[in-house]
Amino acid sequence: MKEIKIKTSKEYSVIVTSSHQNLIFQLEIHKIKSCFIVTDENIYNLHRRYIDLLKDKAVGIYIIKPGEESKTYDVISQIYEEMIKRNVNRKTAIVAIGGGVVGDLAGFVASTFMRGLKIVHIPTTLVAQCDSSIGGKNGYNFKNIKNIIGCIYQPSFVYIDVNFIKTLSEREYINGLSEVIKYGFICNKDFFNYIETNKKGILERESDKLFHIVSECVKIKGSIVEEDEFDKDKRLILNFGHTIGHGIEIASNFKFTHGEAISLGMVIESYIALKLNLIDEKTYYKLISILSFFALPVKYTIDIENILVYIKNDKKKTSNHIKFILPSKIGSAIIIDNLKYDFIYNCLNEFNKIKIV
Amino acid sequence: MKEIKIKTSKEYSVIVTSSHQNLIFQLEIHKIKSCFIVTDENIYNLHRRYIDLLKDKAVGIYIIKPGEESKTYDVISQIYEEMIKRNVNRKTAIVAIGGGVVGDLAGFVASTFMRGLKIVHIPTTLVAQCDSSIGGKNGYNFKNIKNIIGCIYQPSFVYIDVNFIKTLSEREYINGLSEVIKYGFICNKDFFNYIETNKKGILERESDKLFHIVSECVKIKGSIVEEDEFDKDKRLILNFGHTIGHGIEIASNFKFTHGEAISLGMVIESYIALKLNLIDEKTYYKLISILSFFALPVKYTIDIENILVYIKNDKKKTSNHIKFILPSKIGSAIIIDNLKYDFIYNCLNEFNKIKIV
Repeated sequence: MKEIKIKTSKEYSVIVTSSHQNLIFQLEIHKIKSCFIVTDENIYNLHRRYIDLLKDKAVGIYIIKPGEESKTYDVISQIYEEMIKRNVNRKTAIVAIGGGVVGDLAGFVASTFMRGLKIVHIPTTLVAQCDSSIGGKNGYNFKNIKNIIGCIYQPSFVYIDVNFIKTLSEREYINGLSEVIKYGFICNKDFFNYIETNKKGILERESDKLFHIVSECVKIKGSIVEEDEFDKDKRLILNFGHTIGHGIEIASNFKFTHGEAISLGMVIESYIALKLNLIDEKTYYKLISILSFFALPVKYTIDIENILVYIKNDKKKTSNHIKFILPSKIGSAIIIDNLKYDFIYNCLNEFNKIKIV
Repeated sequence: MKEIKIKTSKEYSVIVTSSHQNLIFQLEIHKIKSCFIVTDENIYNLHRRYIDLLKDKAVGIYIIKPGEESKTYDVISQIYEEMIKRNVNRKTAIVAIGGGVVGDLAGFVASTFMRGLKIVHIPTTLVAQCDSSIGGKNGYNFKNIKNIIGCIYQPSFVYIDVNFIKTLSEREYINGLSEVIKYGFICNKDFFNYIETNKKGILERESDKLFHIVSECVKIKGSIVEEDEFDKDKRLILNFGHTIGHGIEIASNFKFTHGEAISLGMVIESYIALKLNLIDEKTYYKLISILSFFALPVKYTIDIENILVYIKNDKKKTSNHIKFILPSKIGSAIIIDNLKYDFIYNCLNEFNKIKIV
């Protein structure tokens, strides 16, 4: 078991472990005597042990349908209603067991019910364990705009049992690895080297490898969140691969998982960095090689016009400049916001033509 | 002009002034280049000067119907929609011009749109200037439960123009004075004495008196919020008069304004304090005398059974004890949570029988 402290306006711990046995003890430490569980159908069916563990403390449970379609106010209001029915009061904590969607919904509910209840996150996917459960972001979709409504609200603690990862489908696991590789490639060279050296064990989900990659990602994400809790500047760096990646995700009508689209986004944005001489070919091909090893996509013919329209309308935009987060060497990245559309267009056009071996 | 700093997790200023002239300068200091206005029909019609002042910065405006009925998610979602239409982005600030309802709705919208926009409060009623605009509480009603959904989210600054108070109806002004007297009676003896000494000028809304009472209330409320930003303990003291007062408000089917019900609540809760020998008769009658001077109600025949049912179901309750905030002398109060229902019943019964001269 490892305990990683996140020092935001409110300090909290992330427990990385490979067992459920410490959970009740952690709840006791935080003086949580009663809780309301938010989870999804898959978790409820697959991981009943966790629900059972909480049965003496739980005053109620809300089980959402899995998937992004659940991230609506409609679901939020149904959770509120169930909480009212169950007499949830200001001492009741929310316990969120699930992936990013459960965490986002439960986090929003916790931050807004009676002006804020405690929340404990028990993330069950690789993406949620490495990324979305750390940093307090929550939200839901409104008028087809992703996460446009939400808050930043830190949990009491995060309880990560890496064994959850072993039950993920291959595609869901690989989806998460894309973000893991991102952390190494732009934030921490040693970690990138670790992934390269241990890629076989990682692919096979060996326990010590899972424990290590999750712990490292939590530390990296945690340190960025500590510097920029309210998402003003530094957190932007984590959008590497996302400017182009989001565009591809939408343009392909969600044929790709988020992680697959981000894999393509990272390759293409690194190609732009290569064209700007920010990185050399060796670095570029190292990224391609590790993504390919995990069967993440690295080649795609971009519908350039479409993608550029998307980029221009991205909600993260605050002015007429497009911000790109580009790698400068393995383990670091910079933010560039003065690239001309023509230059981007030419890069994308060239990328469409080249062959990647 | 007076600037009062509130040192919460985020430090901010409350500007107390009697002019609109400093507003644009304050917005510049806070680097607010564009804003979205939330106000109500009354303010829009009566105080167009404020709206006009902002016209170069405003990208849009949402005008709510005045009154508590507007505090619903339905209105919140309409504000979100209008903001999306007007291309509000993360650099746009919300400017709330109005009383408590406008502040609560706009505050919630600001705290949840794109995970948090800046907000500037321009409170226009005495209650909003002295109380609700300070401390960051916001919220809306859900399933007939008042303020059950909301956050605590501090503004960039609060701009208080005491001249707004001169345009309030007599009943609305007196409504606010009830909370002003509360601050003096349980938080600050000098301020209570000031109110007694200057009651005539206060009743006539003399500018210097308005400026002084608003500034003092902001300081008192600010210092309590600084000690207890997230409403865990110390802020509870401001509920003096509210346990019984809320009960009367509901039992009387809102025949009383909030301030009138709180006036009765303060008298009755002080009667309980008298019976417990926490205060003497002189203190009790000083409270009655000042409330009576402002024509606030001090005598009411309580429907005891009804009120006790309400108190038992109060949302602030976290256990089986009822918490009462009771005065201990002029300028201070204590929290008591071990009173028996029988004792309360007898006090209320006795109060129903006595005459107040």
